Amino acid sequence: VLDTGGSDYLLATVDMMVEQVHFDLETIEPRVLGRRALAINVSDIAAMGGEPSFALVSLALPPSCSARFLQEVYEGLAQEAALTSTGIVGGNVTRTSGPLCIDVMLLGRVPRSEVVLRSGAQPGDLLAVTGQLGGAAALRAGAAKSMVPVATEGLSLVPVSRVAVARALASAGLAHAMMDLSDGLAGDLHHLCRASGVGAVVWAGRLPISDVTRAVATNLGIAAESLALTGGEDYELLVALSPGDVERARIGVGDVALSVIGEIVAPSLGVTLLTNGGVRQDIPPSGWTHF
Amino acid sequence: VLDTGGSDYLLATVDMMVEQVHFDLETIEPRVLGRRALAINVSDIAAMGGEPSFALVSLALPPSCSARFLQEVYEGLAQEAALTSTGIVGGNVTRTSGPLCIDVMLLGRVPRSEVVLRSGAQPGDLLAVTGQLGGAAALRAGAAKSMVPVATEGLSLVPVSRVAVARALASAGLAHAMMDLSDGLAGDLHHLCRASGVGAVVWAGRLPISDVTRAVATNLGIAAESLALTGGEDYELLVALSPGDVERARIGVGDVALSVIGEIVAPSLGVTLLTNGGVRQDIPPSGWTHF
Repeated sequence: VLDTGGSDYLLATVDMMVEQVHFDLETIEPRVLGRRALAINVSDIAAMGGEPSFALVSLALPPSCSARFLQEVYEGLAQEAALTSTGIVGGNVTRTSGPLCIDVMLLGRVPRSEVVLRSGAQPGDLLAVTGQLGGAAALRAGAAKSMVPVATEGLSLVPVSRVAVARALASAGLAHAMMDLSDGLAGDLHHLCRASGVGAVVWAGRLPISDVTRAVATNLGIAAESLALTGGEDYELLVALSPGDVERARIGVGDVALSVIGEIVAPSLGVTLLTNGGVRQDIPPSGWTHF
Repeated sequence: VLDTGGSDYLLATVDMMVEQVHFDLETIEPRVLGRRALAINVSDIAAMGGEPSFALVSLALPPSCSARFLQEVYEGLAQEAALTSTGIVGGNVTRTSGPLCIDVMLLGRVPRSEVVLRSGAQPGDLLAVTGQLGGAAALRAGAAKSMVPVATEGLSLVPVSRVAVARALASAGLAHAMMDLSDGLAGDLHHLCRASGVGAVVWAGRLPISDVTRAVATNLGIAAESLALTGGEDYELLVALSPGDVERARIGVGDVALSVIGEIVAPSLGVTLLTNGGVRQDIPPSGWTHF
């Protein structure tokens, strides 16, 4: 969040995707790769209450990368840019002897009074998430196990833009703290709690999980709640807000599901999960491991 | 050059450096790598007449990269940031199975009336460059041939910031067109001429080449002018200005050498070199080859 003297703050974020770490060229369509590379950055800008404006795209390309492949990556970037009112205004291209890297830097803006940070959650706030959780993990797990495509129908590697939802919450002053769920709820909630100096309780029974994700989890023999907590890459919004503001928030976000999944508590109570059986257990700060 | 509604334009640039393509970990110090990664972006902002403001740093790190190495890269980044009044405000770190990548995105600003593009050169303008050319190429060539260190004394892999010089030219309205010499004068001059719709003549005898660079060229058995024309990575400024403004420009840039090396001509005359022997020859658009 950068103060450049105007009535808005300038927002700047960057997220690099590396072949074999963040995607596999065998399983991802180049258009999807392009869309995703921009969309994960849009998600970061949205989570601050902002709107994206301009993007720069850096590419490191191995010799095996064809012009056609690159063309399709850019078609995906352009499609996502159009959907999110973002201008792709520059970038850099270089060769590499290693994996393909795509690094998108995104600028955005937010009115000064409407910026939302991770640090504003207060004990007594409710925790809510948009959309549904665990879908990206179900899709990855399904692909790894070569499950039939129909099993993962409705799941996507391209996160849906939550810019409008986040703007509605931010402009109405309803979000005390907000972030996007990139690493998984477990790890990201720890980030939010640490930044705010609070603890949290997540109610397992209230986690929004789609039927498709539940079916994949059953097929894999794991708990759907695990996918929701630690799967990562859902890029939904996690927001802390006053209990009295939940219904106003629901009206503000329109058709998008906003599920209350827990509450903010005193820091001494830690970050815990209340299971369906009524057991309270610590949520370890796990999730996407960068190394 | 981005219009965000204020009295300044927002400038944004990005330049990715990839191990084995742009640097060799065997020969570059990590502090120099860090300084250079930021400095080459500062050079881009300077060439538009701007000042750098904020940087984001993306790193893709192979398993062989030690914490100490990374610490020293960041010390170099911080040193260059301090020298150029740049704030490093964010970034991204990921692992990679391939070569180390360091991608710096830099923001800057320039008063609207002072922005300098590549497209403003006019027939009759003189062409000038700051500093001296061919040094980076001499250093690379010297290293490749394992020449004794003393031979390349005074040459550096870290470009000197030309922000103050460029600001002086831009704020006084003296630069009709300007760019930084990253790919080599031959290629970059073609870029400037194409953007401006003009031709150019370079006077070989006026190319500013240091004694050290000349000595390296002699040892290598090549013409020093070749290093100056096609060596690349000098990150000096190439500027087109009115003949009547040259002395004002020299006063404006203070202690920095500003050498007139040629003139802008009609587009039909192409981009040519006038040799010391009085022969006119085409300058091919060669230089750094990205692929």
